[in-house]
Amino acid sequence: MTWYQTTLRLPPMERGFHQITRVVVKSLPELADIRVGMLQVFIQHTSASLTLNENADPDVTIDLESSFSSIAPERFPYVHTIEGPDDMPGHVKASLLGASIQIPVTDGHLALGTWQGIFLCEHRNHASGRNLVLTLQGE
Amino acid sequence: MTWYQTTLRLPPMERGFHQITRVVVKSLPELADIRVGMLQVFIQHTSASLTLNENADPDVTIDLESSFSSIAPERFPYVHTIEGPDDMPGHVKASLLGASIQIPVTDGHLALGTWQGIFLCEHRNHASGRNLVLTLQGE
Amino acid sequence: MTWYQTTLRLPPMERGFHQITRVVVKSLPELADIRVGMLQVFIQHTSASLTLNENADPDVTIDLESSFSSIAPERFPYVHTIEGPDDMPGHVKASLLGASIQIPVTDGHLALGTWQGIFLCEHRNHASGRNLVLTLQGE
Repeated sequence: MTWYQTTLRLPPMERGFHQITRVVVKSLPELADIRVGMLQVFIQHTSASLTLNENADPDVTIDLESSFSSIAPERFPYVHTIEGPDDMPGHVKASLLGASIQIPVTDGHLALGTWQGIFLCEHRNHASGRNLVLTLQGE
Repeated sequence: MTWYQTTLRLPPMERGFHQITRVVVKSLPELADIRVGMLQVFIQHTSASLTLNENADPDVTIDLESSFSSIAPERFPYVHTIEGPDDMPGHVKASLLGASIQIPVTDGHLALGTWQGIFLCEHRNHASGRNLVLTLQGE
Repeated sequence: MTWYQTTLRLPPMERGFHQITRVVVKSLPELADIRVGMLQVFIQHTSASLTLNENADPDVTIDLESSFSSIAPERFPYVHTIEGPDDMPGHVKASLLGASIQIPVTDGHLALGTWQGIFLCEHRNHASGRNLVLTLQGE
């Protein structure tokens, strides 16, 4: 049984869904040593989140952004408005999507389905970078 | 400390929420050996998902289906429409609900509440079967 | 490698989002012994849930409550109505938000971001207390 943990600082990204599968895997050479285990990707923020979704057609990310912005709209009688109109919807999306994903590890690889990719969901219009904590365990 | 991992192929199911608690537990005789641990159920798809919800009244599953289909409707200006009108809402639901659930294990059993069951959420009208990865760890 | 597991009974809380970071940490003196690991907080109910969100401005919790009550409204043609108008929306919110959160542990502390807190999301108008299962693993 082994534990690895590292942090990953992502550069500023524009509002929307951005695939980060490659950069996550690249940060974890230790993956190759795990026969069976678990990877957690955790985001240390409350107006950005993580999700798994289709990795093939970039149009899907456009529709995810418009869909989530329709489910948690900017036009709503929010009380917490001091940080701008994109802030409170960002908090709602953060809870809808969640701050972490857990992916099983099999024979040195993430056991993702063929069409699954890891996405950073940036909910702010002008965010600075984002911190991820990657925690890998297994045997 | 022990790790077990197995895959479970679910047969095609109709669109909606389907309880799978029994078939998951049946696939894991090793559960009985775990005093304290964690089970992850992970789905390798992006238009179906997993959730925990009420296991008693089947009407709840009807309302979950209609509610999520109202939150992520088919009528919406999606760009990604090539796979049919039920596809892109399925991707939105997949991110709303999530690709995995993690359940604590206590004294050889899943530590679910009395009313909690595991549900496969099928978002497509005509899906083929679905692959789950079950990962159990503990001592 | 060590596993700890304990249960935490929360007293009845009114409908809404309630920060419980302090009471969770207080229940886990064993956290101090973990250099790298993982904490899961799991709720054994289907009309209450857990989330991570902003810990600073209490107005955020007001907006989370109104937003989620707008996404999963009481006025909707539900079939399962026998437990009152706040019950079925509570089940929808439970699946939107999820029954567990997983937080990485680093050097004896939860690796939360500066603004992240753990919230119990109570979806019923008159709930009795809620049971949490806390599972901590690491080395």
